[in-house]
Amino acid sequence: MPLTRDDARARDAVDPLAEHRRRFTFDDDVIYLDGNSLGRLPAATPAALAELVERQWGVDLIRSWPTWMSEATATADLLGEAVLGVGPGQVAISDSTTVNLYKLAVAAVRARPGRRRVVVEADNFPTDLYVLDGVARDHGLELTRVQADINGGIDAADLAAVLDDDVALVCLSHVNYRSGALLDMEGLTTMAHDAGALMLWDLCHSAGSALTPLAASGADLAVGCTYKYLNAGPGAPAFLYVRADLQPELRSPIQGWFSQTDQFDMGPDYRPLAGIERFLAGTPNMPGVIAVREGVRTIADAGIDALRSKGVALTSYLIELADDWLAPLDFRLASPRDPALRGSHVTLEHPLAWQAAQAWIADGVIPDFRTPDRLRIGPAPLTTSFEDVWVGLDRLRRLVADGEHLAFPVERGRVT
Amino acid sequence: MPLTRDDARARDAVDPLAEHRRRFTFDDDVIYLDGNSLGRLPAATPAALAELVERQWGVDLIRSWPTWMSEATATADLLGEAVLGVGPGQVAISDSTTVNLYKLAVAAVRARPGRRRVVVEADNFPTDLYVLDGVARDHGLELTRVQADINGGIDAADLAAVLDDDVALVCLSHVNYRSGALLDMEGLTTMAHDAGALMLWDLCHSAGSALTPLAASGADLAVGCTYKYLNAGPGAPAFLYVRADLQPELRSPIQGWFSQTDQFDMGPDYRPLAGIERFLAGTPNMPGVIAVREGVRTIADAGIDALRSKGVALTSYLIELADDWLAPLDFRLASPRDPALRGSHVTLEHPLAWQAAQAWIADGVIPDFRTPDRLRIGPAPLTTSFEDVWVGLDRLRRLVADGEHLAFPVERGRVT
Repeated sequence: MPLTRDDARARDAVDPLAEHRRRFTFDDDVIYLDGNSLGRLPAATPAALAELVERQWGVDLIRSWPTWMSEATATADLLGEAVLGVGPGQVAISDSTTVNLYKLAVAAVRARPGRRRVVVEADNFPTDLYVLDGVARDHGLELTRVQADINGGIDAADLAAVLDDDVALVCLSHVNYRSGALLDMEGLTTMAHDAGALMLWDLCHSAGSALTPLAASGADLAVGCTYKYLNAGPGAPAFLYVRADLQPELRSPIQGWFSQTDQFDMGPDYRPLAGIERFLAGTPNMPGVIAVREGVRTIADAGIDALRSKGVALTSYLIELADDWLAPLDFRLASPRDPALRGSHVTLEHPLAWQAAQAWIADGVIPDFRTPDRLRIGPAPLTTSFEDVWVGLDRLRRLVADGEHLAFPVERGRVT
Repeated sequence: MPLTRDDARARDAVDPLAEHRRRFTFDDDVIYLDGNSLGRLPAATPAALAELVERQWGVDLIRSWPTWMSEATATADLLGEAVLGVGPGQVAISDSTTVNLYKLAVAAVRARPGRRRVVVEADNFPTDLYVLDGVARDHGLELTRVQADINGGIDAADLAAVLDDDVALVCLSHVNYRSGALLDMEGLTTMAHDAGALMLWDLCHSAGSALTPLAASGADLAVGCTYKYLNAGPGAPAFLYVRADLQPELRSPIQGWFSQTDQFDMGPDYRPLAGIERFLAGTPNMPGVIAVREGVRTIADAGIDALRSKGVALTSYLIELADDWLAPLDFRLASPRDPALRGSHVTLEHPLAWQAAQAWIADGVIPDFRTPDRLRIGPAPLTTSFEDVWVGLDRLRRLVADGEHLAFPVERGRVT
């Protein structure tokens, strides 16, 4: 098919998710290709927050707490079912991804005493590396960083090379934050288990856009954020997953009162709850929970299978355009070409990526820049159209062909 | 002066803070005596949240992050200056009180290697006891619980009895969550320092209603919540304080990317920032930050000295009414009588406190119940009038005199 704007429109016309765009606000005038960093605002969220703030807090005051506690649990279970495909009682909404990763990683390494190593992908998201570095040091463990192809992700051979019965925990990102590589959750989890290690998945860049076979893989633990594909807004609370049968043997190092049995008895001694709530810490952030609920509903209503299909179609189309228009301008694909190995964002390498990003933004298109020299382009399955992708890439090829990017400062261009 | 409703109104008429009530919403029909649990909604908060959500998120999308980062820092500094009386760069807004307490307690005990004990008030808020129990166990330390008068708080003699050069950390609540006892921050901090220990204050029940002489006392560390007297709403982010000169030698155990030097370089190795930001973890919750900003502004505009004076006047008046009306009905004061030793809530003991609380709520007055047999009454200095206190206590004396509370179930009455 020719790569015309009409062709892009034709793809939108038959997109079964196209109508779901109406559930979001589009009051801006940009082509937004950064939904994998901060998802768009669901149209229902402002009213839901107003109800929480103005009626439940403003009028009902402290009397709303029973409602709020139920809401937090129900939202966690909805996220588990609609986004992660897991049964109730295994997901909690709390804290940030960083804090959740810390809680679960500490719990995990303590559940494998005697094992002296933690394995992580060298190109995992930085906060994961930093957190695990601290957890390993604090427990006298060695952190083994597996280096994979920076444009791909780690595979079975990479993991096999470092796995043995001295590994307590393996922590990998399901979709790599930079390359978009989608790892084989089932195969890699089985390998970790065969070595007797626990497996912790970071789902930040996959939850809400990729299938997450937590149940089928038997994965032990997962964490993820809600402000990307789950559309819950800046800094919304994160989630964590602990497989039901594993919950009794793991303990959070942060023994907060929301994980306490009979919390409002306020007894002097800590007795953690039996279920997923034992991984909670402090008082739930209710505006955050409500924003997560509204964001998760947009995913639930579209259906995760349809979202995954749309994500594959969007990124494949993006790569097709990039091959045709951008490769001649020195752009190289820095993501897996096989859609089965790719999440919902595409990364392009270019020697002047930082300048290209600035020029593109000035031209009304918002991507992400990622070190060292990459444009990260995230067409969100729920809110990005094929025409958005066409217009965005059309502007990029024109401005780079015209050398417009050369007018932008280079100072951030080569950080490492 | 006679204890008439007209007298209460006369007190309101000369209250310099009375006009500040207009800055809050009062759409409910209750007498709210639980502002020490969940503060009222500032009138400016809904519009501020709508601006954040509908414009900054909905329209400006990812482009708002520079604004949001500045807002988080500015709000933390405003809280420090207006609420805590400390200079900039020493307060961060992040996570929950529980998580902040964990981060600082771990940092503190690691900064005093070789010392084998942590001292805590036995009647400290439960989450503090649970968190410190875990921190002590994880570091091979003993947790020493100082038992004080349950209706008061610990004093110099109590602390002296357990302090020696084996204590790494002392953690106390500035205002006790149950009795309302206000501790001598300056005297007790000096004692801890004389023993070579670090001093961590929980300010949850004092921030925004009591003077917190962090600077004058030389206190090392503090944590506190924002949803009580700071009026930031259910589960709003908490704050932490680390004295400037102490920051370089302390490290958070949770090595998150918001504490990383040159965060967006996304380097592979953790290099914590030099300042207070080294105690941050994950992405800041922006609706929470905005709600904290609006809540803190209500405190800043009233002035903490005026709030403290009003709090003393309100609680003294409440005790005066309780002495006259409620003592004959078997209520006993379970808070310090000396206002210099009392925060902004008053606790009354009664054999049927749980039933009295239920009956009081049914009669349109909202207090808190606290184990084992106490009504906790929190007239918030900014939002509670003397007439509120008069009407509330008048209803309580009537319903208990009439035996209305006996119709309510007892099952929660005697938890321990």
